[in-house]
Amino acid sequence: MPVLQDGDFYVWESRAICKYTCRKNKPELLKQGNLKESAMVDVWLEVEAHQYTAALEPVILECLIRPMFGRATDQKIVEDNLVKLKKVLEVYEARLSKCKYLAGDFLSLADLNHVSATACLATTPYASLFDAYPHVKAWWSGLMARPSVQKITALKKPYFQNSV
Amino acid sequence: MPVLQDGDFYVWESRAICKYTCRKNKPELLKQGNLKESAMVDVWLEVEAHQYTAALEPVILECLIRPMFGRATDQKIVEDNLVKLKKVLEVYEARLSKCKYLAGDFLSLADLNHVSATACLATTPYASLFDAYPHVKAWWSGLMARPSVQKITALKKPYFQNSV
Repeated sequence: MPVLQDGDFYVWESRAICKYTCRKNKPELLKQGNLKESAMVDVWLEVEAHQYTAALEPVILECLIRPMFGRATDQKIVEDNLVKLKKVLEVYEARLSKCKYLAGDFLSLADLNHVSATACLATTPYASLFDAYPHVKAWWSGLMARPSVQKITALKKPYFQNSV
Repeated sequence: MPVLQDGDFYVWESRAICKYTCRKNKPELLKQGNLKESAMVDVWLEVEAHQYTAALEPVILECLIRPMFGRATDQKIVEDNLVKLKKVLEVYEARLSKCKYLAGDFLSLADLNHVSATACLATTPYASLFDAYPHVKAWWSGLMARPSVQKITALKKPYFQNSV
């Protein structure tokens, strides 16, 4: 379970850690001073957690994590969740054809919270999933090109090198 | 799907709606000006969404919602989720023996976000679930005594009157 220690202060729950880090170091990623923009950040943070990652995580679990421990992939779980994920990606495609980023024409934590799970997708047999959604693909390529994201994915590589 | 219209502005996703409403009308429920307190609000909002309500919702679905539509309750789903919920309630009991509310000694959205689903629990065969957790029970009784919470539960009553 991820825990952040900052002096004598502890924060747990991944998304709460991310928000704390933003508030402390990059509050502009939450748009907290702006009522409407911060609401849009919240909306897409919810969509990420309850729609996007909720569908993507079982795919990663079955295709990457279970095989790491010598367990078989349950292809039915993978297929069921790919159906859900494709429906979410249709919504993302429509959204990203109107805005540069999910919450609007500004980068926010709502975009960056996608990085961790989506970077894992690239090492599954479904790496080309975004090809059918050109605006999603462009958004993801833009995120991947960010130096901070490159740093994070480089840190993850050793864990997945046996799986690809 | 719940949507809030505020003039020409629309917010969706229940928890994003609640945050928007707080920021606009009761920002003290988010403790946004305080780095540590706002982090604790975020932590317990995450716990509510991903642990507490994630276990409680299937119980409500099986015991209340399905019977409303003439469908049978799947007791296996109920039992499995009650096991999960009891584990969460043990954590809540420990937390609420140290603090008056979940995020600390102050009421926050993290507490209030429990109201909607927990009020439904009272109309299931598991209404006495909290009896085994005295601090949780006192916390819940305190929330239920709030005029705003009484108003909300009164609005919900007609929907559940045939189920109790």
